[in-house]
Amino acid sequence: MSLHLTRPARTTPGRVWLVGAGPGAADLLTVRAARLLATADVVLHDALVTPQILTLCPQALLISVGKRSGQRSTAQALINQQIIECAYRFDHVIRLKGGDPMLFGRADEELVALEAAQVPYEIVPGITTAFAAAASIRQPLTKRGVARNVAFFTSTTAPGEPDQAALPGCDTLVQYMGGQEAIATAKRLLDRGKAAQTPVVAIENVSRADERVMRMTLADMVNGIPDCSGPVLVMIGEALRERS
Amino acid sequence: MSLHLTRPARTTPGRVWLVGAGPGAADLLTVRAARLLATADVVLHDALVTPQILTLCPQALLISVGKRSGQRSTAQALINQQIIECAYRFDHVIRLKGGDPMLFGRADEELVALEAAQVPYEIVPGITTAFAAAASIRQPLTKRGVARNVAFFTSTTAPGEPDQAALPGCDTLVQYMGGQEAIATAKRLLDRGKAAQTPVVAIENVSRADERVMRMTLADMVNGIPDCSGPVLVMIGEALRERS
Repeated sequence: MSLHLTRPARTTPGRVWLVGAGPGAADLLTVRAARLLATADVVLHDALVTPQILTLCPQALLISVGKRSGQRSTAQALINQQIIECAYRFDHVIRLKGGDPMLFGRADEELVALEAAQVPYEIVPGITTAFAAAASIRQPLTKRGVARNVAFFTSTTAPGEPDQAALPGCDTLVQYMGGQEAIATAKRLLDRGKAAQTPVVAIENVSRADERVMRMTLADMVNGIPDCSGPVLVMIGEALRERS
Repeated sequence: MSLHLTRPARTTPGRVWLVGAGPGAADLLTVRAARLLATADVVLHDALVTPQILTLCPQALLISVGKRSGQRSTAQALINQQIIECAYRFDHVIRLKGGDPMLFGRADEELVALEAAQVPYEIVPGITTAFAAAASIRQPLTKRGVARNVAFFTSTTAPGEPDQAALPGCDTLVQYMGGQEAIATAKRLLDRGKAAQTPVVAIENVSRADERVMRMTLADMVNGIPDCSGPVLVMIGEALRERS
């Protein structure tokens, strides 16, 4: 372990907050999250948390726990261990996760670890990227008479799980980290009978200064979406049709 | 119109912000929303927005635009008209909506009205109740190997729409304002083959001081959930099974 933690471990743990960092802009954190960050002793943050957000906790020791692809399970076990170690060295520990901590964040594994180590914790929700994206493009995810429900899904699979086994059946579909899977997702939806002219909006770096909006149809999406270096949210459905 | 607006209309409109108020607790607004509220001239708010949140804008003229059931279409048209009237009388108008404005909020109709009236506007996302609920009960909406996707739906229908025509097929299901529809939802899910022992969590007044958590199985839910006076969120799926 190279945590650069100079304080010795204690017998009584501090408190851990699992905090949602929202989509990227620092003023899209909740008031509660911003207040907690301002007094944290240590902040363990994802790769998705922006530098702008980390300026909210200049007093804190920052520990980057961004995962490396291909080593996910190892990385998650290490993150769990790091959180517990921090909890036994500091009073006020924040585990800061991009978006909302309870969606696609493997929060369950961190909560199990905290409970096993008898560390008290609280959870603070965050704005998930889909809502920031809808605000940015000015199109709601649900729309009366057009889209009554919305599903959030991701193509990231656990070992042994069939990829995209459960592409949901909903009026509006939102795929997180959907850039790499765009072609496969489009083919599956067309196979299922979704209309070729269904609108698609792919957004890179939602809510950040370099946000990029790409509009197409489901038929276009079969050819993939343009190359992106940042995280891409893919939104599919009639609710995404542009107002005339 | 009895808006109590004493200022005369102008030829150039002010700016309107559609702002998500989050689930109820005042510190679960975003930092951006709280800053905007502190300088608003007028705030048109839903019935779902709590008094605690309205203390964030003591300087603003408050206009309650809560809908009355059974008169929805009329009420929405009136709300649209009120927003536009305010925009032509004030510089800084906030339309404050419970949760996130782009989910089940009929935002589309308000945006169309703003665009028709040539009023400039911006949208600020909010924490939707489902994420605050997941944080409160400490159970993620997705869980590796158990629940890979989540759907948000509501039973509220537009005129002419079949009720619950499109109950989504997803690992985790979240029904907003689901209290009244609990029995019908449970029967449909059982008919579809969802396991009788699937965990259900119904939560009244999420994130507020009087929050109430009710746990049951899908089989129990066929008998309805206890009477509630506040809004009820119903969450269904294996991800909601309590950790041992």
